[in-house]
Amino acid sequence: MNEPQHYRLGFVGIGLIGGSLALALKNAGFASSITAWDHDPHALEAALELGVIDTAAKDITSLMEAVDIAVLATPTLACESLILEMLNNPGATLCVTDVASVKGDLYRGVLDAAPAGAALYVPGHPIAGSERSGVRAADAALFAQHRVILTPGVDTDPLALGLVQKLWTAAGATVQCMDVNEHDSVLAATSHLPHVLAYALVDALDQSPIRDDIFRFAAGGFRDFTRIASSDPVMWRDISLANKDALLAALDDFCEHLGALRTSIAERDGASLERTFRTAKTARDEFAKDLAMRDHP
Amino acid sequence: MNEPQHYRLGFVGIGLIGGSLALALKNAGFASSITAWDHDPHALEAALELGVIDTAAKDITSLMEAVDIAVLATPTLACESLILEMLNNPGATLCVTDVASVKGDLYRGVLDAAPAGAALYVPGHPIAGSERSGVRAADAALFAQHRVILTPGVDTDPLALGLVQKLWTAAGATVQCMDVNEHDSVLAATSHLPHVLAYALVDALDQSPIRDDIFRFAAGGFRDFTRIASSDPVMWRDISLANKDALLAALDDFCEHLGALRTSIAERDGASLERTFRTAKTARDEFAKDLAMRDHP
Repeated sequence: MNEPQHYRLGFVGIGLIGGSLALALKNAGFASSITAWDHDPHALEAALELGVIDTAAKDITSLMEAVDIAVLATPTLACESLILEMLNNPGATLCVTDVASVKGDLYRGVLDAAPAGAALYVPGHPIAGSERSGVRAADAALFAQHRVILTPGVDTDPLALGLVQKLWTAAGATVQCMDVNEHDSVLAATSHLPHVLAYALVDALDQSPIRDDIFRFAAGGFRDFTRIASSDPVMWRDISLANKDALLAALDDFCEHLGALRTSIAERDGASLERTFRTAKTARDEFAKDLAMRDHP
Repeated sequence: MNEPQHYRLGFVGIGLIGGSLALALKNAGFASSITAWDHDPHALEAALELGVIDTAAKDITSLMEAVDIAVLATPTLACESLILEMLNNPGATLCVTDVASVKGDLYRGVLDAAPAGAALYVPGHPIAGSERSGVRAADAALFAQHRVILTPGVDTDPLALGLVQKLWTAAGATVQCMDVNEHDSVLAATSHLPHVLAYALVDALDQSPIRDDIFRFAAGGFRDFTRIASSDPVMWRDISLANKDALLAALDDFCEHLGALRTSIAERDGASLERTFRTAKTARDEFAKDLAMRDHP
């Protein structure tokens, strides 16, 4: 195969994530041209005006005819039908990837509905984001020194996988492959469950009879703990539903541990409480140290 | 009464909180002299050496003979016996106050054991702290623009209450009185419960079969959410036990709201999920705005 040094890139969905990746790959010299399609014409206009993309495609089929690599970067629930449309019209593309934060349901849906096209599909998930959204918030450095998880299956084309690895490396990210179900369990534990807990806590306090004093006297620790409850409700509704099984498993496991702590408090079992708090502190301190090393190696 | 402009202050326990308050009141000209007693002679030596206190008392009785205002600033579980010793030997003091973060059990214990002396006792709780501890971490600005809750009872001497209000105002804090049970409920909701949730989550993940990947792929949101799980296990064991009833009530209320979210996820009830997430986001955004105004008025 006559592999080009630069690639014609296509984006389906050009918001914060797609726009940031487009900028990063343009800066890195990885992209020879960038085409995008978005259901929102205003997003396409803004992307053209900002120089994030070179060309707006009139539909997905014409986009797929014009690019080597196609990236789907839309909200979670829109992914399955769009990726099927892309795989059923592969055009000139060598591979198709996405950035959805839940992978299992989506990948199984693609395998069921488009078993032939699925070889070109490399499921991906960059562990990076921002509380901002939209192409105007695009940031070429968004993925620098962040991790990207790919969850290829046994049928994934190795060439397609290699191209997607090159793409994320060019954007400054560190790429790691993982089993798709393990990905969903890891994300449920570290991200989806904490969001649900933060939303549940603020919801409970908001309905308390002493609500006003609660919010009046809450301080910095509470602000940090509940920061993720300020996240986009629609995005987190979609993620919660897309990752239902892994999220419920993580939630039930958490509730078991919380129930054990409740028993220790109710029975005034100080030794057991202290033991659990100490183990957790040790694990959390170690994690925070590792994260600081990752962020500032 | 011939009220002095400056007060002879005494501290029982001279760590981060006592030391910071001593420095703030010395800087403010509120203290004419500062005496302290601590069960740890090294803490007293350090406080003298750093100029945080003027005199080390040999015991609580001699401290109470030498001061106008006595402040108890020791860990939670030591408070009840020490405050009874102070109130049973009032010496020259006009009032006794404390800084414990749980107030109900302590106040009821004092009323039961020392009903006469209890009039001089003004229960207090500064909403401020640091992950550091000990008198060497003392900081004169620790309470500036922070809130202090006082929970006087019907029998509290108004002069004693007035003095403690003046003391905290001189240290730069904003003082507010609150019913003692409401105080414990507010703190359970905004501080004690979030600590238990963070400890429970890290404990659950630490024992997961995919523990290593969980901590490897957790990012900034998880770091913020679990920051309070790095708190001192002994202090939080003591607080959890001291505020058992209010903490269990807050925990059970939280679990009810979490259970409702679980049902919405399990039944794929997107409308209900989105409604709860949206209400919580609105409340949390409003709280964060108010807190920012408080911090930077």
